[in-house]
Amino acid sequence: MTKISGFLEWLPEQRMVELRWIDEIRRVFESYGFCSIETPSVEEIEVLLAKGETDKEIYVINRLQADDDISDARLGLHYDLTVPLARYVAEHFNDLVFPFKRYQIQRAWRGERPQEGRYREFRQCDIDVINIDRLPLQFDAEMPAIMYDILSRLQVGDFQIRVSNRKILEGYFRGLGIDDPVSAIRIVDKLDKIGEDRVLSELQSSLNLPRELALRCLALAKIRTTDLSFIDQVQALGIKSNLLNKGLEELAFVIDALSSLPGGPILADLSIARGFDYYTGTVYECKMLEFPTYPSICSGGRYENLAGAFINRKLPGVGISLGLTRIFAKLVAEKRLKTGSKCPTQVLVIFPRAEQREEAVRTAKMLRERGFNVEMYHIPGKIAQQLRYASRKGIPYAWFPPFEDGGVHEVKDMATEMQVVADPMTWSPME
Amino acid sequence: MTKISGFLEWLPEQRMVELRWIDEIRRVFESYGFCSIETPSVEEIEVLLAKGETDKEIYVINRLQADDDISDARLGLHYDLTVPLARYVAEHFNDLVFPFKRYQIQRAWRGERPQEGRYREFRQCDIDVINIDRLPLQFDAEMPAIMYDILSRLQVGDFQIRVSNRKILEGYFRGLGIDDPVSAIRIVDKLDKIGEDRVLSELQSSLNLPRELALRCLALAKIRTTDLSFIDQVQALGIKSNLLNKGLEELAFVIDALSSLPGGPILADLSIARGFDYYTGTVYECKMLEFPTYPSICSGGRYENLAGAFINRKLPGVGISLGLTRIFAKLVAEKRLKTGSKCPTQVLVIFPRAEQREEAVRTAKMLRERGFNVEMYHIPGKIAQQLRYASRKGIPYAWFPPFEDGGVHEVKDMATEMQVVADPMTWSPME
Repeated sequence: MTKISGFLEWLPEQRMVELRWIDEIRRVFESYGFCSIETPSVEEIEVLLAKGETDKEIYVINRLQADDDISDARLGLHYDLTVPLARYVAEHFNDLVFPFKRYQIQRAWRGERPQEGRYREFRQCDIDVINIDRLPLQFDAEMPAIMYDILSRLQVGDFQIRVSNRKILEGYFRGLGIDDPVSAIRIVDKLDKIGEDRVLSELQSSLNLPRELALRCLALAKIRTTDLSFIDQVQALGIKSNLLNKGLEELAFVIDALSSLPGGPILADLSIARGFDYYTGTVYECKMLEFPTYPSICSGGRYENLAGAFINRKLPGVGISLGLTRIFAKLVAEKRLKTGSKCPTQVLVIFPRAEQREEAVRTAKMLRERGFNVEMYHIPGKIAQQLRYASRKGIPYAWFPPFEDGGVHEVKDMATEMQVVADPMTWSPME
Repeated sequence: MTKISGFLEWLPEQRMVELRWIDEIRRVFESYGFCSIETPSVEEIEVLLAKGETDKEIYVINRLQADDDISDARLGLHYDLTVPLARYVAEHFNDLVFPFKRYQIQRAWRGERPQEGRYREFRQCDIDVINIDRLPLQFDAEMPAIMYDILSRLQVGDFQIRVSNRKILEGYFRGLGIDDPVSAIRIVDKLDKIGEDRVLSELQSSLNLPRELALRCLALAKIRTTDLSFIDQVQALGIKSNLLNKGLEELAFVIDALSSLPGGPILADLSIARGFDYYTGTVYECKMLEFPTYPSICSGGRYENLAGAFINRKLPGVGISLGLTRIFAKLVAEKRLKTGSKCPTQVLVIFPRAEQREEAVRTAKMLRERGFNVEMYHIPGKIAQQLRYASRKGIPYAWFPPFEDGGVHEVKDMATEMQVVADPMTWSPME
């Protein structure tokens, strides 16, 4: 929308929907007991690079007019909300109660090449739980359940939350005798995007695997089930590995705990691994089914020690992040976003002549004190013009205060054009 | 709070209060019919510099790893929300309904030397009205009324919103025959900060005014009234000027329209002018009376043509900005912020043994569906440990589902330690 590539902004009627979404997301997060935090937009560059990612397109900030007497740290805009959380938990360790359950709805920035679904500024809605030393698997199961709840309420269309566990891929690949399981994981993680044939050829060319071995890698990655039957299917592939077993056990716990939710939207998909190497167990991603080539709208996973760079404690965590801008922008682009009025005003108080100002002000105040959003027309003038303003802004009611002694209040429903006598102390839009 | 100077962050219990404030501010803005917009964090540098301010400490952003094939505009973080609004209105001119009334609650950034009340990242809550060609004075009166409403609700202590009109100072100084009225305005604007003696000496030294003339400048700037008596006081100074008369007339309209509010918190103060030179009429600023040396917490004014750099239309506006971070940080620093629990959870569902999971999950779900914020304890274990968790997080109720056939639900009030039988379908915290 703006002229600056990769930075979006919305018209008022679109922003009203976005705000409603944010309210709804926040309400669900809080209903599960997550507390809000907000971190600065910037972190020290060293913090942003601490988890070993150097290929992120980090934006650094510098003062346009730097003077010599203020020493500035090297600062960069955060590119996600997970790294700032790890730094926050380390910094405020003694003031937090663990398990620490927080949500964070903030913008993040990446200097990526802008393209559909990838923006340079975007809003994410994250939940994470971090605990000391050990973190119960219960939380791994809670993450997709909460996102299922949110995505259903937002009515974004059909979606599928895919869950796996990195230990399964890694244990299986190690059991197959593959030297570089991490590279193999990165390749099969792209199955959904590039298809079976290219996964096979990449496994052969990049890792120098014989075709037969590449096929056995693919056999695991192709397993997708909505119930616990993935266990039998994996075991039928005949690989023995403690790590693989551990992964299957953890994923079974999560999928079983989610069994009260409808099976379609949540499934075990053994191909997924997520890009970040700091994930060590459960991983999630989520697609809008109508837009299969569109990137994941919600993803995350478990990390055993992300805060380790900042504090000498073991602080395992699990989290999931909803890509609000990514979903919202897609629905706007597809003309699927239902927008309503251009402002929150419910009642416009009509104000025809200057000497009626006091009565109009008093009426607006009365209605406002009763909780309605009320504008008084800003200047005395023709009633037709004032009604036109209401209708252009999508204001549903026009209010006529009594402009002479003994007169009555009347209210006009702008949609039906019905005008009735009303009492500002008792009126409600339902009547 | 963070180690990065000038960038703040809050603990969860503080953030809960900040969120409540933001909700309240937004509710008041909407109750007056203002719609929300949000602009990107960045603008082109040329836009940020368009209003002629070059001394702002603008932060520019650059990609850490810039490659040659993506040409980046020169982008900077916005340092206020008024310039982005002007650009927004120009850009979306044909999609907006005028008068355009918007609120914007966002962060802004200034690479200032951090000091008390001045941060490098801060949140502002702005309202502005922009119209085509002419903007009724009604809106100039609405701005401080709305802020009075908000500041009273937030209970920030005693405050004073000072209103003036730049035409008064300018017309008066011109009437006195002063060559450079703008510089004179900048000096008397500091009256509150530097005192009468320094204003006098600066007027004499910087503008080369004789002491007698400097005294006459000061005489105007010292006028402060809670009613319309400022008019007589100004006229008694004996300066004739059309611009002065226009300013008096406008200020009289605004002060008169505000006369239903208590007189103490709102007053005419002819010394104030605001730093930005784009203000052309009404100006506002607001102080917390307990902290007289602390900077203004809420300020703004009328500008005749801020969008003129971006569109060939005359678009006068008036706006006011609440410095949320500035107020909040001060109350935290003064230990005046009352914080409560560390999370939004109202009920903790107790979960003693693994086989009771299903019953605990079902109970949590029932209460959540009724609108309560509910956590289920995350792992089976000792009840005492679970109650300790509730008490450390400030969760007010602990819920005991029936863990055997025919058992009953019970709920414990953590404050009174009273435990009673309760029905999850009808219970409310009030009983």
